[in-house]
Amino acid sequence: MFTLEGRDGNARAGRLQTGHGEVLTPVFMPVGTQGTVKTVDQRDLREVDARIILGNTYHLYLRPGAEILERFGGLHGFMQWDGAILTDSGGYQVFSLSELRTIDEEGVTFKSHLDGSSHLFTPEQVVKMQRSIGSDVMMVLDECAPFPCDREYALRSVDLTTRWAERSRRAFEATAPRYGHSQLQFGIVQGSVYDDLRARSADDIASMGFDGHAIGGLAVGEEAGEMYRIVEAVTPRLPADRPRYLMGVGTPENLVEAVARGVDMFDCVLPTRNGRNGQVFTASGTLNLRNAVHRDDPRPLDERCACTTCRSYSRAYLRHLFMAKEVLGLRLATIHNLTFYLNLMRAMRAAILEGRFAAWRATTLAGLTHNVSAST
Amino acid sequence: MFTLEGRDGNARAGRLQTGHGEVLTPVFMPVGTQGTVKTVDQRDLREVDARIILGNTYHLYLRPGAEILERFGGLHGFMQWDGAILTDSGGYQVFSLSELRTIDEEGVTFKSHLDGSSHLFTPEQVVKMQRSIGSDVMMVLDECAPFPCDREYALRSVDLTTRWAERSRRAFEATAPRYGHSQLQFGIVQGSVYDDLRARSADDIASMGFDGHAIGGLAVGEEAGEMYRIVEAVTPRLPADRPRYLMGVGTPENLVEAVARGVDMFDCVLPTRNGRNGQVFTASGTLNLRNAVHRDDPRPLDERCACTTCRSYSRAYLRHLFMAKEVLGLRLATIHNLTFYLNLMRAMRAAILEGRFAAWRATTLAGLTHNVSAST
Repeated sequence: MFTLEGRDGNARAGRLQTGHGEVLTPVFMPVGTQGTVKTVDQRDLREVDARIILGNTYHLYLRPGAEILERFGGLHGFMQWDGAILTDSGGYQVFSLSELRTIDEEGVTFKSHLDGSSHLFTPEQVVKMQRSIGSDVMMVLDECAPFPCDREYALRSVDLTTRWAERSRRAFEATAPRYGHSQLQFGIVQGSVYDDLRARSADDIASMGFDGHAIGGLAVGEEAGEMYRIVEAVTPRLPADRPRYLMGVGTPENLVEAVARGVDMFDCVLPTRNGRNGQVFTASGTLNLRNAVHRDDPRPLDERCACTTCRSYSRAYLRHLFMAKEVLGLRLATIHNLTFYLNLMRAMRAAILEGRFAAWRATTLAGLTHNVSAST
Repeated sequence: MFTLEGRDGNARAGRLQTGHGEVLTPVFMPVGTQGTVKTVDQRDLREVDARIILGNTYHLYLRPGAEILERFGGLHGFMQWDGAILTDSGGYQVFSLSELRTIDEEGVTFKSHLDGSSHLFTPEQVVKMQRSIGSDVMMVLDECAPFPCDREYALRSVDLTTRWAERSRRAFEATAPRYGHSQLQFGIVQGSVYDDLRARSADDIASMGFDGHAIGGLAVGEEAGEMYRIVEAVTPRLPADRPRYLMGVGTPENLVEAVARGVDMFDCVLPTRNGRNGQVFTASGTLNLRNAVHRDDPRPLDERCACTTCRSYSRAYLRHLFMAKEVLGLRLATIHNLTFYLNLMRAMRAAILEGRFAAWRATTLAGLTHNVSAST
């Protein structure tokens, strides 16, 4: 399922075969929480050459629900997306969005953030829901410990997550895909900021035969250096022949640093959410479209970018759309930011395969730290 | 500039040559107030085959302003739209949006709805602004009388609008296009709901050599029957060899009825605004996407429609987007509604040219009055 094609230091390039096509790694997965990557349509996603996007089990379970998804042949049919879909287990959303959650050995009981109705997520039910969604890659239910989190809580949480992972794997093996395409399942390593707990969790999760391994519970408020240290502690303990996924990360710099430490897959709301706020990424730093400096600037967002936004529209026009609160601006900025993120991953992949990742990383990081709006 | 190709009863089919291509009439012009037809991009507009869109002088004057538009070669260059653009004079917005307006012979002084700053619009300045915008068709400054409006006020308003029209025409003739493409100027007939004042205004405006003639001050709250009566009173007095434009109208039924009475051009926020509210038009009536009846409906919005929305997405998915407040829904519904309006105009044009407009009108109106959501 995963073929490692090349290594350069700890950085890896590979191919993940899914039920909906091959995904080249390192890869960034645009976040499509509710069956849509916010503001863009599925053609836009194909045009930025996204091969895999994220869906969220918690949101899709509440709306539109398993019954409707099943009637449409899963989320692929419902949203008319023929690329791959990875679904988060919903664990993170249960802990961040829902109210009055209570956790016990069986699972987590929570009230919907939409209507207050009560629901129970167990490891088994989350597998079942992801069978209904038709996820190409499903994630196990885990406990996302709060941050900061004391060592005692983190230890209990890691062990519960491990027991849930075992149940998840059994449930996965006892059930079959519904729609004729294969499905993969990834385990999740937890352990907060404690290196020994992370190691313990990694060893436990790595032993269960998952198709890939995720590092969860990071990018929750800790320093970037701490995140990198934990990634360094975890990746060597994960099987080299399976993909590694750093959940919810991150900035362009974070992606480069994590790939340098052996991570293959990422997802984050940053390119889409920041795009909707008028912040766009360029190879020479970020740019705030509301800044007056852009008011009559005829240049595209990034001279080096070939996305439909940069091919068609000036910074001045995009600024006008944001100042006039016109919805079109949200989509055009999102298209550009997704293109930037996916191009960054492509550039990393090429550098790894050509054995020049270290030099590429140094040059790229130097460019990324510059803020265009502030300095011009 | 305008070629009348066919008549069927009072209904007309023609071609209007503009500085940015030929426009086939009858035509519906999508409203792009602030340099964007809300939620869609310029490629979407080309895909629905819009040949002419509306811009608004009042909004564009305030933001981004003449200076920036001039720097980009006008609104066409600024928004990267190579089809035709008609601009409203801003008269309507001055009377509906701005605060503390005062009107005198010279023009209208108003405070910006954006920042409260004071501005004066004169007939001459409005021509000048539309030279800066590069409008393919510019409208004269008129006074949009309130509704209801007593006869005495309406009479004074008509005569002021006539004097302003004369000044507008002189200003047009005394100035030249800025960007190398031709510009046309349309006069506007006022007179509230008083047939004799409408006749007086039509005769006055028709005598001034405008490239086309608009009927303003309708669809402001009067009954549809009253609107049709006034259209019937006005169109016979307008030169047959120039296009006639019914401003701000209307529903699909309104368009059919007005074409039957000799109108060639229309604009209205209905397809775009209603689309953003989840109301879509189909040949068998309107459909509210929030209605629960659509929750698992795999059909497209309209089986007969070939727009990108109908080719790609189900009613169930579109309903999900609206229920989840996802921005993508706004654009997909807008694309469909614009397609519906433009197809309706194309169908009318074909029926007129083939001499079967009366039969087409009867069949079409019978279908349009049905409400799909309420009845299924």
